[in-house]
Amino acid sequence: MGIITFLSDFGTKSSYPAQMKAVALKISNAKLVDITHNITPHNLIEGAFVLKNSTPFFPSGTVHVAVVDPGVGTKRKGIVITTKTQILVGPDNGLLIPAARNLGDFKVYEISNTDLLLDNISNTFHGRDIFTPIAAHIINGVFFEKIGPVIDNYVDLDFKKPKKVMDNIVGEVIYIDDFGNIITNIKYEDIKNIAQQKTKIQASISAKKLVIPFLKSYGHARKGEPLSTIGSSNHLEISINQGNAAERYSVKAGDEIKIKFIL
Amino acid sequence: MGIITFLSDFGTKSSYPAQMKAVALKISNAKLVDITHNITPHNLIEGAFVLKNSTPFFPSGTVHVAVVDPGVGTKRKGIVITTKTQILVGPDNGLLIPAARNLGDFKVYEISNTDLLLDNISNTFHGRDIFTPIAAHIINGVFFEKIGPVIDNYVDLDFKKPKKVMDNIVGEVIYIDDFGNIITNIKYEDIKNIAQQKTKIQASISAKKLVIPFLKSYGHARKGEPLSTIGSSNHLEISINQGNAAERYSVKAGDEIKIKFIL
Amino acid sequence: MGIITFLSDFGTKSSYPAQMKAVALKISNAKLVDITHNITPHNLIEGAFVLKNSTPFFPSGTVHVAVVDPGVGTKRKGIVITTKTQILVGPDNGLLIPAARNLGDFKVYEISNTDLLLDNISNTFHGRDIFTPIAAHIINGVFFEKIGPVIDNYVDLDFKKPKKVMDNIVGEVIYIDDFGNIITNIKYEDIKNIAQQKTKIQASISAKKLVIPFLKSYGHARKGEPLSTIGSSNHLEISINQGNAAERYSVKAGDEIKIKFIL
Repeated sequence: MGIITFLSDFGTKSSYPAQMKAVALKISNAKLVDITHNITPHNLIEGAFVLKNSTPFFPSGTVHVAVVDPGVGTKRKGIVITTKTQILVGPDNGLLIPAARNLGDFKVYEISNTDLLLDNISNTFHGRDIFTPIAAHIINGVFFEKIGPVIDNYVDLDFKKPKKVMDNIVGEVIYIDDFGNIITNIKYEDIKNIAQQKTKIQASISAKKLVIPFLKSYGHARKGEPLSTIGSSNHLEISINQGNAAERYSVKAGDEIKIKFIL
Repeated sequence: MGIITFLSDFGTKSSYPAQMKAVALKISNAKLVDITHNITPHNLIEGAFVLKNSTPFFPSGTVHVAVVDPGVGTKRKGIVITTKTQILVGPDNGLLIPAARNLGDFKVYEISNTDLLLDNISNTFHGRDIFTPIAAHIINGVFFEKIGPVIDNYVDLDFKKPKKVMDNIVGEVIYIDDFGNIITNIKYEDIKNIAQQKTKIQASISAKKLVIPFLKSYGHARKGEPLSTIGSSNHLEISINQGNAAERYSVKAGDEIKIKFIL
Repeated sequence: MGIITFLSDFGTKSSYPAQMKAVALKISNAKLVDITHNITPHNLIEGAFVLKNSTPFFPSGTVHVAVVDPGVGTKRKGIVITTKTQILVGPDNGLLIPAARNLGDFKVYEISNTDLLLDNISNTFHGRDIFTPIAAHIINGVFFEKIGPVIDNYVDLDFKKPKKVMDNIVGEVIYIDDFGNIITNIKYEDIKNIAQQKTKIQASISAKKLVIPFLKSYGHARKGEPLSTIGSSNHLEISINQGNAAERYSVKAGDEIKIKFIL
């Protein structure tokens, strides 16, 4: 019967997420799954990162509505992206692109068919009035050609890539999770050659210099001790076993991090 | 197969929301949707406002369980309200009334048939033991007459209406959402005549005097700049583009706001 | 079609809960219910308490995935527990045991059949890669014998029991809910004999001595006044009517509490 997911920066106090679900259930019989509504308000990079990391685990045919949308009610377009396996719906501000690129083979449609939207379109909540109705109609089998024209002048967005500088890798913090794990933009594939048989990293982060073990998982460090590991999205992260690394080291998303693997 | 929604002030740390869902799924095969569980504890006005704003988007036949219930275990009654399209279940303390009035044509039943409740009724959690079983039985098709008698001495509740004083409108802040948007009790219909061709408002709020543009949406102001707009529930709100207006102006729900439209 | 629930300490900002749901929906057609993802990080006792209190309300056959798992990626095992009515899946660290004991007649299987897991097993997220796939296969009817061998050397965990010391009962705070209700490990059955016809308790907690009424529910105290009552999980709790008792008395989970019933 199809799945619609929701990702937004709306928070969970308001009923904005529920209003989207109400609309979805009025039009379709989809299963509804929240990815999260706690993206830092207006933070496109964070939203794009979380969307990219979660979409691959969903079944083929899943439709994802993602709304981090400071430009709502301006001239920014609404888009639908088809990929090899799944469909993305949201604002044309780059939010959907890293997920689309990761899912592969993507094509962008501009939403222009007003027959598929709610009768009254507010200026401040296109998640409810435009993106969710479109998602529900996709679940019901609408042809993508009916949604609007294919475009190639969509707004692009990508994460910064880490750089090799001598024997250091210079990257940045891309995400802090609820545990306080410091997740970097350095991926396993960026370091797998140089990390082999290394047991520690030197890390410069937030004006601190750390030498910490490089371990298989959190529990291999003693409780309260720092470590680095390859997390569940294949990114290098810095953690404290049963503690909060971001708080201890005063690190936030966007901070530069320089690392070097040592024996 | 029917939809049951849940709104409460239980928070998301406890399993109280999940215990209600468990009971709903034991009795019925309904789809379950959270409206929110983050109503400010014991705040009936906020709960009633969020319920009223979200219910209209749900399909006909949806049953809403709403629990902001400081009087649980005292003599306050439990009620079911039928309306033109949807059904409301909860405590008889006014919480359900603005939503019922907005949905139209409402009738209030007192819950008195104990056959429809859990076997053991706690004194502190009627959301689980009384309101959810009733909602699930409604989904299963129980006749409303079996629930209990129709009453007209239910507890009423309404939001304060804004007043016109000279060429000012005096209202109050009714809700702050997770973005920090300051949502007032001034509705579009209250101002549509006087707002025409006006481009700014003078607002007195929290001992501050602001002159801010009146715009179609947030993104028409520069980043970090204040604006007023008609939000997605048709209420006038004061916002900061990509910022938190309630924090910047130290505003909270219940504060008076005085506005005047100017050219 | 079966129900899978999720309990974790992942928080709601990340997409870790959604990644588990994605995997569940890829393998099965289960209904998904969150118990909570806001267990205090790494707090096994709290997780075990919330799991034990919520499981009994679910229908027979429900499969619960619980993940508070500081030992992920170390040698700790993964287990499935069958009980009289429901099934539990998670780490072998004690988290599941109080719920299992409460549901009754339990049997522990070690997860060893890698055919039932995701193809790539991360070292840091067994909730997604091991426990959820197992839960989904159980919903699909896999024989428990296919999961792995029955073991009896699982890690046990139990809550401290209150003690009678003279005419006092010495217990501890086991949980603080979102309202700030102070929930103790003293159960109704521990006190029903001595509480009869008593109207007050003397309580020593967090270096404070309180004499507060023992009431049927919160609303029988005046607004802002303290009370004790038997909460919805049959535990003695200390509350403030429409206030936050844990904040007012600076109480946290694990604190000792000594009470005495008086006339």
